[in-house]
Amino acid sequence: MIINKVRETIKKNNLVNGGDKIILGVSGGPDSICMLHILNYLKDEFNIKIYAAHLNHKIRGIEAQKDAMYVAKICDIMRVPCFIRAIDVPAYCKEKGVSLEEGARTLRYNMFFEIKDKIGADKIAIAQNINDQAETVIMRMMRGTGLQGLKGIQYKREDGIIRPLLDVDRAYIEEYCEQNNLNPRIDQTNLEEIYTRNKIRLKLIPYMVENFNPNLKESIARMTNLLKDDSDFIMEQLNKSFDEICSKISDNTISIDIDQFTNTHKALKNRIIRKCINFVLGNIEGIEQKNIQDVNDLINSDKNNIRIDLPKGILVYKKNGKILFTDEEIIEEKISYNYIIPKSGYIKIKESNTIVESKILNIDEYDKSSNDKYIKFFDADKIKGSLNIRNRRNGDKIKLLGLGGSKKIKDLFIDLKIPKEERDLIPILSDEKGIIWVIGHRMSEDYKIDSNTNNILRISFKAL
Amino acid sequence: MIINKVRETIKKNNLVNGGDKIILGVSGGPDSICMLHILNYLKDEFNIKIYAAHLNHKIRGIEAQKDAMYVAKICDIMRVPCFIRAIDVPAYCKEKGVSLEEGARTLRYNMFFEIKDKIGADKIAIAQNINDQAETVIMRMMRGTGLQGLKGIQYKREDGIIRPLLDVDRAYIEEYCEQNNLNPRIDQTNLEEIYTRNKIRLKLIPYMVENFNPNLKESIARMTNLLKDDSDFIMEQLNKSFDEICSKISDNTISIDIDQFTNTHKALKNRIIRKCINFVLGNIEGIEQKNIQDVNDLINSDKNNIRIDLPKGILVYKKNGKILFTDEEIIEEKISYNYIIPKSGYIKIKESNTIVESKILNIDEYDKSSNDKYIKFFDADKIKGSLNIRNRRNGDKIKLLGLGGSKKIKDLFIDLKIPKEERDLIPILSDEKGIIWVIGHRMSEDYKIDSNTNNILRISFKAL
Repeated sequence: MIINKVRETIKKNNLVNGGDKIILGVSGGPDSICMLHILNYLKDEFNIKIYAAHLNHKIRGIEAQKDAMYVAKICDIMRVPCFIRAIDVPAYCKEKGVSLEEGARTLRYNMFFEIKDKIGADKIAIAQNINDQAETVIMRMMRGTGLQGLKGIQYKREDGIIRPLLDVDRAYIEEYCEQNNLNPRIDQTNLEEIYTRNKIRLKLIPYMVENFNPNLKESIARMTNLLKDDSDFIMEQLNKSFDEICSKISDNTISIDIDQFTNTHKALKNRIIRKCINFVLGNIEGIEQKNIQDVNDLINSDKNNIRIDLPKGILVYKKNGKILFTDEEIIEEKISYNYIIPKSGYIKIKESNTIVESKILNIDEYDKSSNDKYIKFFDADKIKGSLNIRNRRNGDKIKLLGLGGSKKIKDLFIDLKIPKEERDLIPILSDEKGIIWVIGHRMSEDYKIDSNTNNILRISFKAL
Repeated sequence: MIINKVRETIKKNNLVNGGDKIILGVSGGPDSICMLHILNYLKDEFNIKIYAAHLNHKIRGIEAQKDAMYVAKICDIMRVPCFIRAIDVPAYCKEKGVSLEEGARTLRYNMFFEIKDKIGADKIAIAQNINDQAETVIMRMMRGTGLQGLKGIQYKREDGIIRPLLDVDRAYIEEYCEQNNLNPRIDQTNLEEIYTRNKIRLKLIPYMVENFNPNLKESIARMTNLLKDDSDFIMEQLNKSFDEICSKISDNTISIDIDQFTNTHKALKNRIIRKCINFVLGNIEGIEQKNIQDVNDLINSDKNNIRIDLPKGILVYKKNGKILFTDEEIIEEKISYNYIIPKSGYIKIKESNTIVESKILNIDEYDKSSNDKYIKFFDADKIKGSLNIRNRRNGDKIKLLGLGGSKKIKDLFIDLKIPKEERDLIPILSDEKGIIWVIGHRMSEDYKIDSNTNNILRISFKAL
């Protein structure tokens, strides 16, 4: 009966393909021993080859040794090739500063994937059961999670992990081990996370089953399957949106188009931000919901050309209608140009995409009535040295027409409400004394035409 | 502090608009009395008008009476207009065969909506709190649910229900009632569902809080908010898909395009089927996951022109690349036609969109070599009475060329593997004795040209 269940799970979820080589994680406990025995029975039917892998974690010296010997022996009896490796997990954990539980898991999975590469295996089978599923989902729910967490343990992961026992109740696993005289090892571990899980397993779930739903595990398993479909759907939609509104600038820089982002559904927004951070960092460890909210706030704020810093060295810039995620400071390339203008002739200013025409006129040719803010007249004799068209420099000042004293160009731009990012693009006409004309905006008092003027300089600007 | 929380909840979720008339459901218990007191305090700030509504359910005679009197009195003190109605809920439940809990809820909400219509109110405020939220989600999870269930109680529903206390802990509500000497009534009800909820409230949640997460309620509330966004997103996508692949045929009939459905994401498929059933029934009560699966199986099967019956009188037809949901039997309009053919001339058969040409030839003009399956020659003198082109009739038989005895047309069609839905479209040439030619397929022995033939009937078929 349990074999039928496993067969069904494998078929329904396409866990194996004919010809697959599969590494079984075998701790020696009832779950993994049951899985080993059943897959050994089913291997011809599915046309798969199976291998066992065991980590002697050295956490409890003699007991860990006995676990390894038991696994070696049962594999030998079943004629299943078996890889056993001994690693001093407590030493590793001390060095890395991680919990025994976490260290053992990391090393165990590292080992599985190493063996998978070495023997060219296709899958790694892990013996989690329907009780583990219910415990995991209830634990995550109690601690706070989202759709991703509620979908629980997966039957099949993209990296090759499969879980053929995920529909089976632990009680049947234990019964199966007994009926087949497998005498699995009972884990004596009492690590803290295991302890939490034991309370869920031995206290919480039995209380729920007794008082609320005798089929609790099955109900939760059904829920996780529905939520997995929902989660997959949202991920599919997320990837579409992400491709549409995000642009990879370099290996460590990605941008979001703010307008498109704003029109995206709320459910996708945080996921897009997380995906951008993941693009830069390679993971999103250490990034909290609060950080994601900070990015949302940055996007929604009226401010422009600002930057916020997230943990792990992530820099988030807002500029020119984009949000940029990067781990390197963006040094603004200062736009800088300077053209010498003939007293009479044409010159093209590529930075502002315009043509400047200059001309010396006789006083009689001067047309006072011109109102064009891109055509201006100056006293040609008041100009000293070369005539230049350039962008602003630090310290630039102008003696404004009609205003006593001079004003900083920076303050002028602020008064004129010119956005920061445009200020370097505005062309300025100058000579060696100072600024003649902030083109399109204001002229200097010093070069104006008066009753003594004989020669007139006419400057005109035309967009290309 | 609790007032700030309520204010925040109202603002963050846009629960009220200036000028709203709001009916408060007031049972007299701590939650609803606290809500009444706080909204009365906030009414000017939000520019809303509040009204109280209380149902005297008569479940526990004297106690229910006291509840009503208490609500009337406190509303009077606060100068809040109060609607009190007495309904014999136990009698109603007996008549309808529903539980007291269910009956009371139905009648209470009916009353709220009636008052809302009567006074032209905008909202109905219900006093559920963050504990109710956690209890509801945990209960649903234990009983088995999907995304829809896990998103929990909503702050705001489209029908006008709002829940301004949903972020507030019950402990603060009780404290608030005490501090303000409100002396709320304590519900003595011990209905079964309340009993289940009491176990969650008094046993399960305290155990979880103590052993797994001191901020359990807040964690669950955060989860429901995330899941609500996800659920909303999926519903938005569902509605788009539904509009694309479903067509409303009439008020009680809707169809799904099978090809488009097949290309839809798994997460949407079941939801589309449920939405179709809801379209026909007006609700999906009594429809189980198994019924939805049956429709999926129907869609995936190779069979065509079949029907399955779901509960509540829903009929699901599969035909012509569509799935039809309806509650009325679809009576096939039998295609039936019969044209009298001149011995020599043309006639158009609109049902098969063809032109038939008939011609009497001399034996010398007979071209035996013709291989066209739509041009055939018969002994004109063997034909009795009028010559007809028609579709099949029950009992039609043909004496096939080369086969002793006659064969039913129905069996012939089966042998020829002609799909059921095409059989009525195939034109048949007949005279008053019987069938001459199943056009495009087989001829009768009885009309064949032999050594005695003098006059030949040539019939040709041409597609228009």
